[in-house]
Amino acid sequence: MNNPCVYIVGAGPGDPLLISVRGQRYLEAADVVVYDHRVHAKLLRGARTDAERIDVGPAAPKPLEQDAICYLLAEKAREGRTVVRLKWGDPFVFDSGGKEAIFLHEQGIPFEVVPGIPLAIAGSAYAGVPLTYPEAGDAVILIRGNEAETDAPAHVAWEHVAAIRGTLVCYAGAGQIPAIARALVSNG
Amino acid sequence: MNNPCVYIVGAGPGDPLLISVRGQRYLEAADVVVYDHRVHAKLLRGARTDAERIDVGPAAPKPLEQDAICYLLAEKAREGRTVVRLKWGDPFVFDSGGKEAIFLHEQGIPFEVVPGIPLAIAGSAYAGVPLTYPEAGDAVILIRGNEAETDAPAHVAWEHVAAIRGTLVCYAGAGQIPAIARALVSNG
Repeated sequence: MNNPCVYIVGAGPGDPLLISVRGQRYLEAADVVVYDHRVHAKLLRGARTDAERIDVGPAAPKPLEQDAICYLLAEKAREGRTVVRLKWGDPFVFDSGGKEAIFLHEQGIPFEVVPGIPLAIAGSAYAGVPLTYPEAGDAVILIRGNEAETDAPAHVAWEHVAAIRGTLVCYAGAGQIPAIARALVSNG
Repeated sequence: MNNPCVYIVGAGPGDPLLISVRGQRYLEAADVVVYDHRVHAKLLRGARTDAERIDVGPAAPKPLEQDAICYLLAEKAREGRTVVRLKWGDPFVFDSGGKEAIFLHEQGIPFEVVPGIPLAIAGSAYAGVPLTYPEAGDAVILIRGNEAETDAPAHVAWEHVAAIRGTLVCYAGAGQIPAIARALVSNG
């Protein structure tokens, strides 16, 4: 961490001890922490007491707010400060981390992505239900759900999803489960 | 960690700093570490100097060897020792962690699964290529590859995989890439 840089760090979901050792080290060294509202409060206590902490709301912000977050990251980095962008789950799985990474690249600002444990992976571990099993198919499919914050529904070819032998994980609110079950059943 | 127990811990792939803080704490406290051959040597240095270390070979062992690993975990736990089963990647994604968890459950031995960052997630982060992006579809599909250690080929309905709009990650050796590309192209 010699050069000012933005670290886009996945905190993992829920349990604050699921952050990676690398992610935690960056967090402890950060001058500025820009975090999703959903990130566990205990994680933020791991940052320096004099670190600036900025809550930027939901993991799936509206487009205008997303632009503001991108510019905020760039601005703080240009001030020569080390920025950690702390995100719930993994930054690249159904999250805006990809937008932020591409924006920083376009702006010529060095960044590093530290992966996090995605919700689907942690949920499986904590439930004790293996995502894959030798006799249970050779594929895992993750499907984006609709978060309350976004309006766009997921476009999913359910007839093809239903035909693949494997495990299906839907990132969805409880209210969506009936519709997803109907789509799967009606497609075989 | 008051009761003797088996902790099935995902180390993540490659970078030893990708293990979770929780996983590292269990590793530091373990009496016995049973590890995949692929796990990074630096991680093992994090265990106590007096901890017993047992290399059980590849992440996808042959069935007979897998049974031996299951019984080994149970035996060490029954001796009243705290066991960490350290696995490459995530224990439940195309790995034998599911078999071990179910075996321990059947044997009445307490266990806990600590998820790890799957290869697909870390590869995406380190390459700087987002696995998902708002305009790039709403699904991520992980497909099991054939490891050198296993004989069974993956059974994949490529015609349906090709029809789903999203990101596809194949866990495969470089030698398999032409066959996978052919399967996808010939299925549209």
